[in-house]
Amino acid sequence: MSDDTLSLAQILIARRSLTPADDGCQEILIERLEKLGFRIEKMRFGEVDNLWARRGDTAPVLCLAGHTDVVPTGPLEQWDSDPFTPTIRDGKLYGRGAADMKSSLAAFITAIEAFVAQHANHQGSIALLITSDEEGIAVDGTVKVVEALKARGELLDYCIVGEPTCTDTLGDTIKNGRRGSLSGNLTIKGIQGHIAYPHLAKNPIHLAAPAIAELAQTEWDQGNEYFPPTTWHISNIHGGTGATNVIPGTLNLLFNFRFSTASTVESLQNRVYEILGKHGLDYDLQWELSGKPFLTPKAELADAMHAAIVEVTGIEPQLSTSGGTSDGRFIADICAQVIEFGPRNATIHKLNEHVAVDDLEKLSRIYQLIMENLLIDKTVVADSDTDGFWDKLKKYFSFG
Amino acid sequence: MSDDTLSLAQILIARRSLTPADDGCQEILIERLEKLGFRIEKMRFGEVDNLWARRGDTAPVLCLAGHTDVVPTGPLEQWDSDPFTPTIRDGKLYGRGAADMKSSLAAFITAIEAFVAQHANHQGSIALLITSDEEGIAVDGTVKVVEALKARGELLDYCIVGEPTCTDTLGDTIKNGRRGSLSGNLTIKGIQGHIAYPHLAKNPIHLAAPAIAELAQTEWDQGNEYFPPTTWHISNIHGGTGATNVIPGTLNLLFNFRFSTASTVESLQNRVYEILGKHGLDYDLQWELSGKPFLTPKAELADAMHAAIVEVTGIEPQLSTSGGTSDGRFIADICAQVIEFGPRNATIHKLNEHVAVDDLEKLSRIYQLIMENLLIDKTVVADSDTDGFWDKLKKYFSFG
Ligand SMILES: [Zn+2]
Ligand SMILES: [Zn+2]
Repeated sequence: MSDDTLSLAQILIARRSLTPADDGCQEILIERLEKLGFRIEKMRFGEVDNLWARRGDTAPVLCLAGHTDVVPTGPLEQWDSDPFTPTIRDGKLYGRGAADMKSSLAAFITAIEAFVAQHANHQGSIALLITSDEEGIAVDGTVKVVEALKARGELLDYCIVGEPTCTDTLGDTIKNGRRGSLSGNLTIKGIQGHIAYPHLAKNPIHLAAPAIAELAQTEWDQGNEYFPPTTWHISNIHGGTGATNVIPGTLNLLFNFRFSTASTVESLQNRVYEILGKHGLDYDLQWELSGKPFLTPKAELADAMHAAIVEVTGIEPQLSTSGGTSDGRFIADICAQVIEFGPRNATIHKLNEHVAVDDLEKLSRIYQLIMENLLIDKTVVADSDTDGFWDKLKKYFSFG
Repeated sequence: MSDDTLSLAQILIARRSLTPADDGCQEILIERLEKLGFRIEKMRFGEVDNLWARRGDTAPVLCLAGHTDVVPTGPLEQWDSDPFTPTIRDGKLYGRGAADMKSSLAAFITAIEAFVAQHANHQGSIALLITSDEEGIAVDGTVKVVEALKARGELLDYCIVGEPTCTDTLGDTIKNGRRGSLSGNLTIKGIQGHIAYPHLAKNPIHLAAPAIAELAQTEWDQGNEYFPPTTWHISNIHGGTGATNVIPGTLNLLFNFRFSTASTVESLQNRVYEILGKHGLDYDLQWELSGKPFLTPKAELADAMHAAIVEVTGIEPQLSTSGGTSDGRFIADICAQVIEFGPRNATIHKLNEHVAVDDLEKLSRIYQLIMENLLIDKTVVADSDTDGFWDKLKKYFSFG
């Protein structure tokens, strides 16, 4: 069984599924899911292959979510082995997607296989939501599948997103939320003129500077139990005609909030308007909400995951909401409990991406235990072993 | 005689002397100067034609300086007549260079012709310094001629630069100095990082904002009798990788001082260093001094010019040091008294550039009178008309 997750991960890594290409990965998964009695639904939107697969008709629905696409390799000559030739060295499996997130996909499949083998009549449903457009612009991927499910009233109860969440050791971090991302495209208006006649011009760079200074120093919120404080950063600033003797007429800024549930989109927008207004600026401002924050409080899924991780790794996972956005933001729209858990993320999107071979089977086992914790009626199973069961249950819910 | 300045201006405007091309303009001037006994010296540097011409060997040397090159026309279809086909409409002469500064060149020549016709044995010397690289990068033009003259010890006493200086009416403004121009190329250093992990990055845009705000609000000096206060402006600002989720590692700024003689290059640089240091910035800063300020106090040339303008136009000219740099900054290196005077500048560098036809002969007459005021021994000429002379002299020196 150990080799099973490894060999499936190797098969997937060998596919050149550069975002948004799937390159046949989903067909490989489908072949194995069909044998387990999953109903397969291919949802192609635009250029993007998506897969919705489900076993069972009843609630609760436990969904495993992920993506087959990978980011570009970067300079091939700087890889120690070809990124699409899965290679094991020193106990590590190298290849593009090894950590983000083909190993998780392989572990999903082998976990389901092991679970179904033992519990063919599990409660509720197991589902898979797989896209090939997570690393790209993510407009024809998970978001579209979620819209389709929502439209037909097919909602989820639990969702495990297999993104690589761990930092130092497998099991150290699970992500029970992600901050929101709110972007602004701000144009400060001045009056263009010759630098030798500044009284006839209005320099938008000078006008904007005190407002930028104030925005950069603003405490937007203090975060909360789950989230760090909201941050605001300018990513791009451009002003000037190129000529060194011309005061430009406009200054353009792109900024971005990563915001916690301690703020709302409206509260942040209003405070930006207030600061820009206070400094008397004439401006245009276009907003784009690329992701609302989502948060899954400690409940059944978090508890089930915590227990599974402790059992397999002996490590107490920490809850985290740090990092960028993920497809979790979309799934949260139809699922109250969305949590991300996957392998170490130290090498994702980098040269020589890899995952520890030993972690593959542990990961599969963790996913399997979560299914057992959520889709098996323990009171029945445990009839013959009541004490052990209660001990276990206590351990599961000692979370935090 | 009236037609003479006009027709020479028309001949010069018909030449397509787009900077740095001279397109034969200097040959036209040379032909007329040779007839007057000028020694002609063609000084070609790089691609640039320059002309140094002198009549006389003794001091004082009165130099008339200007350029034959013109700026590009802009969209031809927006001109009411072809910019290189000099056209008179409603008492105005239209064409590229009509105001900047082919009319001044024509007036120089007809003024010299009239003056030499009456005073073949004038005192001192008359000189012409003409370049075809004033509107461009100005590296092989006047600056090089000045270097050559300086190297051989040929210094000037007075220089009239024929740049268009008047605003509303011919005679209203003469420029007895220009501000200096000191540029800085400033790179603020931060640490690049992902916008979702701002604690691992240092945003140079945020770091720079308070310093920019302070620099923009700084009073560098209060100017002085001749100069407005020094100004500081950013012309270009650029930071950002283009990606909206990356905090850039650096921010680049181009700024420029237009500075009076109330400040020095060193005093301005030191205050910039002080402000950048106060804000704890890590930076690179490259300076470029594109022109030191020059100033010609009220003395013989200003008085002679003032008297000539009053006599021809009835208008009291104002002294000004406003506007951009000119070749005067270079000539000041070998000439203690440099003053600019020429036609109205309202249409220079614009579509439908023009000059009033009536102003051409007045301009020629003003240049002629300045020569008389500086190169004729009035005490001798005036022997038979002592009273009238003293009256005139009083009027000349009532300047201010
Ligand atoms: Zn991923
Ligand atoms: Zn000019």
